[in-house]
Amino acid sequence: MVIINGVKQHRIEVADRGYQYGDGLFETIEVEQGKAVFIQQHLARMKSGSHRLQIPFPDEELLNEEISSLVCDVPHAILKLILTRGVGGRGYRQPEIIHPTRVLSLHSFPEYPSTLKKQGIKARICQCRLGLNPFLAGIKHLNRLEQVLARSEWRDPDIHEGLMLDLNDNVIEGTMSNFFLVKNNQLYTPKLDYSGVEGIMRNVVLQLAKKFGLDTALKQLTQQDVFSADELFVTNSVIGLWPIKKVEQYSFGVGPVTRHIQSWVDDYKKLDRT
Amino acid sequence: MVIINGVKQHRIEVADRGYQYGDGLFETIEVEQGKAVFIQQHLARMKSGSHRLQIPFPDEELLNEEISSLVCDVPHAILKLILTRGVGGRGYRQPEIIHPTRVLSLHSFPEYPSTLKKQGIKARICQCRLGLNPFLAGIKHLNRLEQVLARSEWRDPDIHEGLMLDLNDNVIEGTMSNFFLVKNNQLYTPKLDYSGVEGIMRNVVLQLAKKFGLDTALKQLTQQDVFSADELFVTNSVIGLWPIKKVEQYSFGVGPVTRHIQSWVDDYKKLDRT
Repeated sequence: MVIINGVKQHRIEVADRGYQYGDGLFETIEVEQGKAVFIQQHLARMKSGSHRLQIPFPDEELLNEEISSLVCDVPHAILKLILTRGVGGRGYRQPEIIHPTRVLSLHSFPEYPSTLKKQGIKARICQCRLGLNPFLAGIKHLNRLEQVLARSEWRDPDIHEGLMLDLNDNVIEGTMSNFFLVKNNQLYTPKLDYSGVEGIMRNVVLQLAKKFGLDTALKQLTQQDVFSADELFVTNSVIGLWPIKKVEQYSFGVGPVTRHIQSWVDDYKKLDRT
Repeated sequence: MVIINGVKQHRIEVADRGYQYGDGLFETIEVEQGKAVFIQQHLARMKSGSHRLQIPFPDEELLNEEISSLVCDVPHAILKLILTRGVGGRGYRQPEIIHPTRVLSLHSFPEYPSTLKKQGIKARICQCRLGLNPFLAGIKHLNRLEQVLARSEWRDPDIHEGLMLDLNDNVIEGTMSNFFLVKNNQLYTPKLDYSGVEGIMRNVVLQLAKKFGLDTALKQLTQQDVFSADELFVTNSVIGLWPIKKVEQYSFGVGPVTRHIQSWVDDYKKLDRT
């Protein structure tokens, strides 16, 4: 099911700047029991991204209504939102008057085995690096070739995520997730000043860590920091939190800090639902 | 007029990975007297880009036929080619079997005043920087938010191009063009190892400079190199070659080396047409 600018259809104009230049934003949202989880956080991030890219944000009441009517009867799914600068002429210059395109689409929820959440995943280090650009860092925009190339590096179904380094050899995030490590009961996650996406679940984890008094720092992290950590995990809005049990040849236990955060996140999600 | 996978239509699937992730390539080609100018060079670049992005390249005979039949009666226009990884599921992982999407579209040729080519343009230095990523550098891919943001920085119709720096303060290219400077009768253009697009017209100029014995170097260029140059110009397949007469507060003459290269390019284009 796809709704484009309020109309049920599944095709867009080829002249849409989302297609021509990746000139837009997206959100990937879990739908559970007829409700889009953390929807206000997702919309706030998209709105913030739209300000940075100077794309007019749609009427929020209208958008909320469209989302509600799309997901209200859905037990479990993924809602993807796309917002682009709309149809424009050839050339990078944006049109004088922008009519943004908004796309709402429903997708089946990926059936990940519950062991991933409980026992952790295997991850790898990707060859493809994240470029450096503070003008785009943090934004969940549609220019995603780096992630596509990184994800194309492996086909082993036992490996569930690849960690990406930036050009300065800092570990930044997974191809589809944010990255955290625990060392001496401190929680660390990379700074996203030059690359990476500021994930909703990343912010939830940081917020809950603060609330529960867990020492937390945004930090430049090297591969060596990763390999010598006590605990590792990745987060996103679909998977929630996956502990990492192995990166390359290095093994890790699913430790107490990770377990605490997992339970805080689960409780917080229940709160969001009520 | 738009032809998508051989069919006259102007809409694509929203699930096309070109729309979802900018997962594709494009070419912008001048059409003159029923012929796509430098078409073999454009197709060779797209093919090389498709290898780097691992997108299967379409049957070349078919593609050439589609292009010929689209442009054969066209006096003067722009042909835009887009090649994407086609429709794929949600998520960065590419489908097992890739059915690429190819889009051919015709656009009116922009009516630039002839004074731009003769007397030169005014340019500016953009605030938005080009990110650094050797995995994508040189490729004319669909992830073009940096150019969109840079082009949105000015509306003054007297300024015809913005020069973009990378994060290391090197001048790399224009928002829609490659950049050259002349100093002491030597021709310089930036290296494109970490960012930038390897333009067809850039390669033509480098090739002709070599043929006619003009000393040429690929070099890291700073803003100071630009401001203290003898001559400056930008190139692309649509504008050909525009001398730069002013960048910010610095003025430049349209010098003899630029004039020579302009005439070499004009002659070379005539050869391509025969």
